[in-house]
Parts: sequence; structure tokens; C-alpha cells
Amino acid sequence: MLKQDAHTLTSAIPVAPPPSRDPAPPHTTGRPTFPDRWLVRRLLEVAGQPPVTIVLPDGTTVAGATAADGPRLVIRDRIALQRLLANPEYEFGELYSAGRVDIEGDLPAFLDIIYRHITATTEKGLRALVLRALSKHQHNTQERARERTRHHYDIGNDFYRLWLDEDMVYTCAYFADPDATLEQAQTAKLDYVCRKLRLKPGERVVEAGCGWGALALYMAKHYGVHVKAYNISQEQIAYARERVQREGLQDHVEFIEDDYRAIRGSYDAFVSVGMLEHVGVDNFATLGSVIDSVLTANGRGLIHSIGRDKPGPMNPWIARRIFPGAYPPSISEMMRIFEPSGLSVLDIENLRLHYVETLRHWLARYEASVERVAEMFDQTFVRMWRLYLAGSLAAFTSGEMQLLQVVFNRHGNNDVPRSREFLYRQPS
Amino acid sequence: MLKQDAHTLTSAIPVAPPPSRDPAPPHTTGRPTFPDRWLVRRLLEVAGQPPVTIVLPDGTTVAGATAADGPRLVIRDRIALQRLLANPEYEFGELYSAGRVDIEGDLPAFLDIIYRHITATTEKGLRALVLRALSKHQHNTQERARERTRHHYDIGNDFYRLWLDEDMVYTCAYFADPDATLEQAQTAKLDYVCRKLRLKPGERVVEAGCGWGALALYMAKHYGVHVKAYNISQEQIAYARERVQREGLQDHVEFIEDDYRAIRGSYDAFVSVGMLEHVGVDNFATLGSVIDSVLTANGRGLIHSIGRDKPGPMNPWIARRIFPGAYPPSISEMMRIFEPSGLSVLDIENLRLHYVETLRHWLARYEASVERVAEMFDQTFVRMWRLYLAGSLAAFTSGEMQLLQVVFNRHGNNDVPRSREFLYRQPS
Repeated sequence: MLKQDAHTLTSAIPVAPPPSRDPAPPHTTGRPTFPDRWLVRRLLEVAGQPPVTIVLPDGTTVAGATAADGPRLVIRDRIALQRLLANPEYEFGELYSAGRVDIEGDLPAFLDIIYRHITATTEKGLRALVLRALSKHQHNTQERARERTRHHYDIGNDFYRLWLDEDMVYTCAYFADPDATLEQAQTAKLDYVCRKLRLKPGERVVEAGCGWGALALYMAKHYGVHVKAYNISQEQIAYARERVQREGLQDHVEFIEDDYRAIRGSYDAFVSVGMLEHVGVDNFATLGSVIDSVLTANGRGLIHSIGRDKPGPMNPWIARRIFPGAYPPSISEMMRIFEPSGLSVLDIENLRLHYVETLRHWLARYEASVERVAEMFDQTFVRMWRLYLAGSLAAFTSGEMQLLQVVFNRHGNNDVPRSREFLYRQPS
Repeated sequence: MLKQDAHTLTSAIPVAPPPSRDPAPPHTTGRPTFPDRWLVRRLLEVAGQPPVTIVLPDGTTVAGATAADGPRLVIRDRIALQRLLANPEYEFGELYSAGRVDIEGDLPAFLDIIYRHITATTEKGLRALVLRALSKHQHNTQERARERTRHHYDIGNDFYRLWLDEDMVYTCAYFADPDATLEQAQTAKLDYVCRKLRLKPGERVVEAGCGWGALALYMAKHYGVHVKAYNISQEQIAYARERVQREGLQDHVEFIEDDYRAIRGSYDAFVSVGMLEHVGVDNFATLGSVIDSVLTANGRGLIHSIGRDKPGPMNPWIARRIFPGAYPPSISEMMRIFEPSGLSVLDIENLRLHYVETLRHWLARYEASVERVAEMFDQTFVRMWRLYLAGSLAAFTSGEMQLLQVVFNRHGNNDVPRSREFLYRQPS
């Protein structure tokens, strides 16, 4: 399945219609009509009067409620304006990618403003019903999950290597130290997960959705455990297998190209980082049964996933541009994994602001590599990807998205630490 | 409302029919018939074959599956046996209190075995439906909550003083230090709650369900905050008011005899320790609205409550004997407070085993005071109360009950600590 939550930041690429690679056609750039100006005002109204200024093709401006020096949305041609007015949620990404609308000022800050203002208006009424109906059909069969994952990774490892950390970890890092580099914060996250799982040498661990294998290898190397790691991405599994050979850990880590539903055996720990977003709420009880059937009596588990403060349809823009085919659950929805199974939740931590920092690093590294990206792809791709990263940054900054780590064990198991202090103890 | 979770351990007293104060009538103590022995075997079967031995009135025994040296349930007369066979869940408490059945060996251990074995069998079928229907009718109107609370506290503060800590804290303590006294562990809990709330001097705090006032006074004294504390128990409020005068904190703490639904104003923090169990799931959204309407933009909140691993009807014995009129919610049920409101969950900690230690202390202190209790009441009361405390101890030991602390703030508020390490830092 799709592994590593932030992948979803980008998965619109195969799903959305491909952006035109033609240069923008010559549009009329004449003075917008009075109705256009009225429609722009209406657009601001529907969006909850965000404090942004819209710059029309003739250079005149329409300002939102308190937009003295907020970011400016620049619309470069009149057809772009009309498309934006007709279907802003969809067209913004298309037009931005094509360079026909632009943001003057901070792009993530602009998106943050938009998210905070439209959340309330978009979750109501008919649109919500339609989105809810659509989301029902989104749930992944094994075949569909496999297809989506493979399609997605056609972008290639070389591209991700440009802006991920050297360990290729594509999930939220842990910035307990504000001065940490991305590499340090990703290692800190891997270690934090191991500590939460209370891994002991010789234990057996199963990982569902293992990405390029960084956590599996880290657990084996630093905690002396035996790992079976599942992933349905051929490219990632190939990369991970190459790496396990190179590091001589093939007796400790086995990478298996298969779905979480294929997990069998008996394990002291179950871990999944950044997979749940792609499982679909309808499959949560199945995931719970899988965990229940493989966890030993003293077994522990951890699920790390993007989440939300409340269930229901997502902001349509995010649903379309940031999370197509994925669904970040609320805590009550996540409980459908644990409550029907014989599992007991010990600890839930919300690490949302750590994703803000992670995305800042990714975006900065990405911006530092755009020339290389433009060579590999083109300018439209450069802008599109920038929008995904900035949009995700805004989604976590505004609280539209959360990042949750849930630790659990078996119902009635009393092998539990007295306090969580051990997680924060300095290694002596 | 009923304040302080463990009160519920005892609230069967006003609700259940009063135990007979007459001496046990002279029953036939002749050899049980063959059908009796068959029924006892059937009883063990229904209970999931717990490893306990049943001693019949004639001294003969019937052993559960693997009951070589497990605890023994002694049935002292034949009518007691018949009543127990007819309605074990209800009659056990009645007959135990009256001294007509007894446990040889460790009472909490016996109850722990029973809970672990009957959970599976009692949550299915018609009985579950009936219990679910009943639990719907249990939800508290303000009037009913008030009545239950007042009735309960007729037992009197003098009784609680015999076995609670000197600060009169009637909720789960925090035994991060295994050698802590009950007093130290209760203070540690109060301080842990304050740290989780990140209280700053001068802030305004509202407490819903304040018991005898220990937390409100602690917050004011040690964190310099202004507290309004609500409780519907007249006796507890009177005690708390007396105390606030004695300690000269009347400018910092106000005790209000009213329901959480009456809370108005604006507060930097909302806290509730041991009230939620008595609110009823149907009122969770109302509680969420109350919090939403009084919390400032940077406000934080904490709810501490007994919980469960899964929703649904409780084990009938616990529902009747331990938690009448109360309902400990699962995490998914608790989310009905937060998800419909504009609130964001930051941290959930399960402190179940701390309640095991708390109850061990209470039970030990109680046992040390039984002579005094017998003077205040009678032997039946002594045994009944012992059963409540031992039953609660078993409920937390077996995992039938959990203890959850939920920390939250407003959706999208970014004033959140980078890590939870500050909770465990030694004061310098």
C-alpha cells in the first residue's frame, strides 16, 4: 500500500488530470468587467472573507476583509479568472501549476489563511453529502491500493532523494530539539517509536507499510530485534532489499512485498508509520483483527498516522489536491481498530507541529533543488509540487490535519511502565 | 453531580435494596442434592470455567477447570446456594455482605479471576440488549444527578476520612514513585494535572466536579491561579468552603454549588477529575459545548475519567455493584465531547495501573479501620464496602476498567509544547 504519509501530499499527480505542458495560450488581458469584480467579491465571501488581496489581470485589486498587507493572489489572464470563479477548489491548483495564477508573498501563509477561513463553509450542506458519498467509494481494495502505490512511485527515487533526508524517511520527523537537522529529527523519530514500543533484543517485530525500510533497519541495528516488514511498492521494496544486503542485516530484516492483510505469525511488536491514511476506515476493524491475531500476550503496538480533529468530509481542496485516495481519520474513527479487538490504548500523542517543521525542511530543500527538478520534469511540475508541499504545510499549521501516535497493548495486560518518563530520559 | 470517580465504587449503597440486618435465618444445612451439584457445575460453565473452587454447605467441593489452589467460594447455607444459582450477578454481593457466602483466600484475586472469565460471556445476546436499553435510561438529568449525589454523601465525611488520604482526594492517585505514600501519590496526581494544564500565575481556571476541593486549592496555592469550582454535593461544597476560609484562599478560589451545565464566563483552563463517569454519553456533546463556550483562544483543558477499552454494556455485576448510575466511556465515546466542538486532543494517557495501587492503599486503610466502621454502621456494611473496594481493585487489575487523562486545546491553536518531556523534568 501507499507507504509514508507525506507521499499523499503528492499523489494527486497520477490521479488528477495531467496539467497542460503547453505554454499558456494568449488570453484577453483587457479590463475585467464589472460582473467579474462582483464575482471576485462573492468568491471572497464564500471563502469566509479571508484577509487576502486579489490582483486582477489589469492590475486593479479587490481586498478581502482586513487585507492591508496580507498575501496577494495574482490572476494573470481573464480566462484564468473565469475558471477560478467557476470552480476555485479545483482550478486553483491547475492554474497555479500552469503559472496563470500566482501568490505574491508567502505561499504557505496564504494557504493557511484560506484553510482557516473555508473549513467552516465547506463542511456543510449538499457538498458535504456528495463528498461523503465519494469517500465511501474511495476505500481501497488490495488491487486498487497496489495500483495507486505503483503508479505513484513512477516518479522515481531520484526525485525524492533531492529533498528527503538521506535515510529516505517520508513521514513526520520528531523535532524535540528545535535546532535539529532534518536527518537528526528523522533519526529522533525512529528512536522515539522504538522507545514507545519498548523493544528488547531478540524480539520479533512486524511492520506494516515500511516505505524505503529506514525504520525496519533502524530497529534491527539499534534494538537487536528481528523484523518482517511489509510494503506493496515494488520500487521501495527493491530499494530496501538492496540496502539490507549492503548493511549485512539480511538475517535480521526481511522485506515482504505484500499487503498488511497478508501478515501472519506471532510478534512481540506491531508497528505502522504512515500507512493508516491509506487503509480506509471501513478496513480498520480488519486491521485490528490482523494485529489481534499476530500479537503475543505481552505484545505492544504503535500506529503513527495523519489524523483530524473531527471525522467527516475533508476540505474539498485538500481532498482533491493533498489527499486523493487517502483518508486521515479522527481519533474516534481510529478507535475502530482497537475497540472491537482485544486491544487497549495506552497513549495517544498529537505531534502536529512536528509535521509543520518537517514540511518546512522539505519545502526548503525542494526550493533549493528546483533547477534539478525542472531538468527532470518541467516548470509546471515544479510549481505543482511546490503547491503540494506548501499546501500540506498550511494544512498542519492551521490544524486542518493532525499527526497522531497511538501506543497499545492487549486488553488486561499489566506489563506497562509506571510512567512515560522513560521516553524522555537522557541515555547515560 | 457525583464527584470523584471512586465514589461510584460505593454508590450501590443507596441504590441497591438495603441488606438485611437480621441475623441469617436458620437454613437447612443438609447435604446438597445431586441437582444442586449439577447446577454449581453449570454456574462455573456459564462463568467461563474460572479456576475457583466452590465449597458447598456440607463441606464438599466442586472445582473449576484448573482450581488446584485457587481461591475458594464458600457457600454457608442451602438457600444462599439456591439464590446464588438463580441470579449470581446480583446475589453474590447481597450474600457476601450478609456473610452467607465468603471467600477463602484473596478477595480481589478471586474477583479478578471472575471478571477475566465472564467478560466474554456477559457481553453477548439478549442480556446485552437489555443492559444497553437500561443504560439509555440511566442518563442523568440535573435533578437526578443532584439527588444521587446528595443521597450518596449521606454516608458522611467521617467515614471517608477513615481511609482516604488526609487531603480527601477520591480519585486515582499517581504512583510514578512506587514507594510513595497515598498522600504523596495524591499530591503527585494534583501536580501532574497542573503541569499537563500548563498553568501560569494569574490565569483563570474552572473546575467541573470538584469533590472536597483538594485540586482547586492546590492549583491556587501552588500555581497562583484563580479558580471557580463547581459541585452539586452540598456536603462537599460546605467542607470545601470551610477549608478555603481556613487556608485564607477565599480571594483565589470560589466554590459554587451547581452543575457543570451552569458554567459561564471565560477561562484559560478547564479541568474535570472524576466527573465524566457520571455525565452520561448522551450529554458529552453538551459538555463539549460548555467547554467550547468558556475556553479562551489559548485555553487548555484536561478531563480525567474512568474509561473502558470498548463501549457497550458493562459486566452486569460491575454495572450493578460498582457503577450504578454511572457509565465509564471508551475513548471513541469520550471523543463525542471533543470532535463536535472546536477542540483538539493533544494527549491521552492511560493510568489504569495507578488505580490498582490507589485501591490497594484504600483497601488496606479500610481494613485497618473496620472496627471503627462496624461501630459507625454494622458488620453487613463492613463486608459490603470491602466488596466494593475489592471489586474495583479487581476491575482495574483485570482491565475491565481503564483510567484516562485527556489533554486538549482549541482546534488550530499552536501554543503547544514541543515535547511532553517538561512533564517529567525534575524541579530544580
